[in-house]
Amino acid sequence: MQQKIAAEFLGTFWLTFAGCGSAILMAVIPNRGLGFTGVALAFGLAVLTMSYAVGRISGAHFNPAVTIGLWVGRRLPGVDVLPYIIAQLAGATVAAAVLALIASGRPGFEIGAFAANGYGELSPGKYSLLAALVVEAVVTFFFVFIVMRVTAPGAAAGFAPLAIGLTLSLIHLVAIPVTNASVNPARSTGPALFSGAAYLAQLWLFWLAPVLGGVVGAMVARAVR
Amino acid sequence: MQQKIAAEFLGTFWLTFAGCGSAILMAVIPNRGLGFTGVALAFGLAVLTMSYAVGRISGAHFNPAVTIGLWVGRRLPGVDVLPYIIAQLAGATVAAAVLALIASGRPGFEIGAFAANGYGELSPGKYSLLAALVVEAVVTFFFVFIVMRVTAPGAAAGFAPLAIGLTLSLIHLVAIPVTNASVNPARSTGPALFSGAAYLAQLWLFWLAPVLGGVVGAMVARAVR
Amino acid sequence: MQQKIAAEFLGTFWLTFAGCGSAILMAVIPNRGLGFTGVALAFGLAVLTMSYAVGRISGAHFNPAVTIGLWVGRRLPGVDVLPYIIAQLAGATVAAAVLALIASGRPGFEIGAFAANGYGELSPGKYSLLAALVVEAVVTFFFVFIVMRVTAPGAAAGFAPLAIGLTLSLIHLVAIPVTNASVNPARSTGPALFSGAAYLAQLWLFWLAPVLGGVVGAMVARAVR
Amino acid sequence: MQQKIAAEFLGTFWLTFAGCGSAILMAVIPNRGLGFTGVALAFGLAVLTMSYAVGRISGAHFNPAVTIGLWVGRRLPGVDVLPYIIAQLAGATVAAAVLALIASGRPGFEIGAFAANGYGELSPGKYSLLAALVVEAVVTFFFVFIVMRVTAPGAAAGFAPLAIGLTLSLIHLVAIPVTNASVNPARSTGPALFSGAAYLAQLWLFWLAPVLGGVVGAMVARAVR
Repeated sequence: MQQKIAAEFLGTFWLTFAGCGSAILMAVIPNRGLGFTGVALAFGLAVLTMSYAVGRISGAHFNPAVTIGLWVGRRLPGVDVLPYIIAQLAGATVAAAVLALIASGRPGFEIGAFAANGYGELSPGKYSLLAALVVEAVVTFFFVFIVMRVTAPGAAAGFAPLAIGLTLSLIHLVAIPVTNASVNPARSTGPALFSGAAYLAQLWLFWLAPVLGGVVGAMVARAVR
Repeated sequence: MQQKIAAEFLGTFWLTFAGCGSAILMAVIPNRGLGFTGVALAFGLAVLTMSYAVGRISGAHFNPAVTIGLWVGRRLPGVDVLPYIIAQLAGATVAAAVLALIASGRPGFEIGAFAANGYGELSPGKYSLLAALVVEAVVTFFFVFIVMRVTAPGAAAGFAPLAIGLTLSLIHLVAIPVTNASVNPARSTGPALFSGAAYLAQLWLFWLAPVLGGVVGAMVARAVR
Repeated sequence: MQQKIAAEFLGTFWLTFAGCGSAILMAVIPNRGLGFTGVALAFGLAVLTMSYAVGRISGAHFNPAVTIGLWVGRRLPGVDVLPYIIAQLAGATVAAAVLALIASGRPGFEIGAFAANGYGELSPGKYSLLAALVVEAVVTFFFVFIVMRVTAPGAAAGFAPLAIGLTLSLIHLVAIPVTNASVNPARSTGPALFSGAAYLAQLWLFWLAPVLGGVVGAMVARAVR
Repeated sequence: MQQKIAAEFLGTFWLTFAGCGSAILMAVIPNRGLGFTGVALAFGLAVLTMSYAVGRISGAHFNPAVTIGLWVGRRLPGVDVLPYIIAQLAGATVAAAVLALIASGRPGFEIGAFAANGYGELSPGKYSLLAALVVEAVVTFFFVFIVMRVTAPGAAAGFAPLAIGLTLSLIHLVAIPVTNASVNPARSTGPALFSGAAYLAQLWLFWLAPVLGGVVGAMVARAVR
C-alpha cells in the first residue's frame, strides 16, 4: 500500500507540475509557439510517461475521477479509494507549491490564474457554467471509458499508457478554451489553492462533473464488452 | 451486433466531438497556437484512442468510407454495412448537437461554418470543386489502403490503432486547407446539419469522393500482398 | 518483385504528396499555426504510416539514399537497387503532378518554390552551399544508421516504423531552414520538375549529399554492433 | 567497451545536433511556428530514435546525469562511468562545432546564445538562479526515476525508448522558459563552449542540479518497487 501511495503522489505531482508548469512558466514569453497544443501535449505526456514508470505499482490513476470510476467499475477495492485520493491531492498541492516557488523567481511575477480551472468569467473563452459542466462530464466519460477498456484483460499489452496519455492530450485540445481543462479534481485543487477565492468558489464543478462523467464511463465500459 | 453498434456510435461521437470540437471551441481564442496542427492531432488521436478501446469489438471504423471499403475488401459481412453506417451517422449527429450546446454557451455565439467541409467559396483556401474531389479521393484511398494492410493477418500486433490514427492526423495536415478535411462522410454530415443550406448542398462530394477513394484503396490493398 | 515496386511507388507517392502537400496547400492560409512543426510531422508520419502498411513487402525505403545505403549495408541485393529507385522517382513525380493539379485549383495560383529543396538564394534561411551539403550529409548519415539498426535482427519487433518515421520528422525540424530538408533524392526530384530551372540546377546536391551520408551511415552501422 | 563509447558519442552528438540545431537554425526565420513545441519535440525525438538504434549496445544514456544516476541505482558498473561521460562530452562538443559551421553559412551570422543554458539575465524568461536550480533538479529527478523504472526487469518490452524520449520532450515544454532546459550536463557544455564567457560562468549549475536530481531519482526508484 505504501508503494501505491508513493506512486500516486509522484504521478499526480508530475501531472500537475509538468502540465500546469508548461502553461504557467511559458506564459511570460509570448509568441513562441507553445500555445494550447504544447500544453495539451504536456498534460498527456506526463500521464503517458509516469504510467509506463509506475503503472504496475498503483495502476497509474493520478486522478480522483479515475480512482472513483475504476472502483465503480470493480477494478479497485473500496479500501484503496480514500488513500489514493489523499495521495493525489497531496501530489497536486505540493506540485503547485513548487511551481509557485519557481514562477516567483522572476521580476514582476504575479500569481494570476495559475493554470486553475474556471467557467463564466474565469473560462479562457468565457464559456458558461452549463458549457463547462457538459464538456467536463463528456470528456471524463470518455477518459474513464477508454482507461477501463485499454486495461481490460486481452487488451494489447504495453499500449495502455500510450492510449491513456494521448487521450488526455486530446481532451485538452478540446476543453482548454472552455474550462482550461480539468478532467481531474486533484489537478484542479492544487493550483486553485494558489489562485485565490474566485477560483476556489468554482472548484465544486471540477469535482462534480469529472466524477459524474467518470462513473458513467466506467458503467458503460462494463456493459460494452 | 448491439455491442458493435454501440462501439461505432461512441467512436464516431468521439471523432466528431473531439476533432470538430478542437476547431470550433478554440476558434474564439485566436493566436494561441492550436491552429491546424492541433486540429489535425485531435482528429487522429480521437481515432487512435477509441481504436485501442473498442477495436476488438467493432473493428473501429467510425467512418462509412472505411465500412464500405472493408466490405469491398472482404473484411466485413455485407449485412453489417448498413447498421454500421447508421450508428456512425447517429454518433456524428449527436456529437454535433452536444458541440452546438457547448459552443452556444458564450456571449456572442454564432454558428458559422461549424467545422463543416466545403469547396469553392466554402473551402478554407478557396480551392475548387475539382481540387476538393481529387484531394478527398486520394487521401481516402491511402486511408483505407493503410487500414486494410495494418489489420491484415501477420501485421505487427497492437500497432494498428497507432498507424491508423496517425494516418488520419497526417491526412488533416494536407487536406484542411482544401476541404477542411473530410475523409469521412459521417463526420461531414453531423456538422453540416448545423451549419446551414450552403454546406448541405455540398455534402454529396464528401460522400462520393471518400467512398470512391476508399473502395479503390481496398481493392489495391487486396491486390498488393 | 512487382509487389515491391508497387509498394515503393505508393510509399514515395504518399511521402511526397503528404509531406510536400502539407507545405504547399497550407501556405496560402498564413498564421494558422501549421508552420514547420506541422510540415515536419507530415513527412515523418507519411513514412511511419506506409512503413506499417508495406514494410513487410519492400522494406519501405521510399528513398534512393536509403536503397543505396541498405545495398552497401548488405541488406538489399544489388539487382533490386535500380528498380527501387525508378519506382521511387515515379512515385515522387506523379505525386508532384497531382499536387500541382490540386494547388492550381484556386484563384491566383502561382507555382513558386513548390516545396523544392535549395541552397544559397533558394534556401529558406539563405544558407550557403557548404551548410546545405553538411546538414544533408549529417542527417542522412543518422537516418540510414538508424534504419539499419532498428531493422537489424534482435531489434524490438514492431517499433521500426515508429523510430524511422519519427527520425524523419526530427530531421525536418533541423534541416527545413537550411535546405527545406531533402534527405531523399526522389522527394527532391519530383517537386523540382515543377518549380523551374533554378531549382533543377541545384538538384545535384540533393542526390550527392544524401547518398554520401547514407552510405557512410550504413557502413558505420555495420561496424557498430 | 569500444562499441559502447561509439554509441554514447553518436547518441549525444545526435541529441545536441538535432535538439540545439532545431532551435539555432530555425531562429533566423521567425513566425513560422516551430517555437518551443518544435524544439521540445526535437530533443525528445533525438533520444527516442537513437535509443531504439543503440539502446542494446550502451543503454542509451547520452547524458552524464543519467550515467551517474544509473551507477548510483546499480545499473552500471563504476568502471564505465568516466568513459561514458567523456564520450558524451566529446559528442556534444563535436555536434556544437558542426552546428557552428552550418549556422555560420549565412550572411549576417552571429553566434548569440547558441542554445546554451542560463539563469538570471541569461534565462529566456529571466528566471532566477534559485528557480533554475529547482526546475533542473526536479525534472532530472523525474527523468532518471522514469529511466530506472521503464528499463527495470518486467517493464513492457520495447516501450522504454518511447517513454524516455517523450519524457525529455515533456521536460523541455516545462523548462525551456526557465533555463532553456538542460537536464543534461553534456548538452549544456557543448554549446556553452561556443557562446562565450557569460554562459561558461553559469555552467556549474547545469552539472550540479541535474546530477543531484538524477542521483535522488535513482535512489527513489530503487526504493519504490
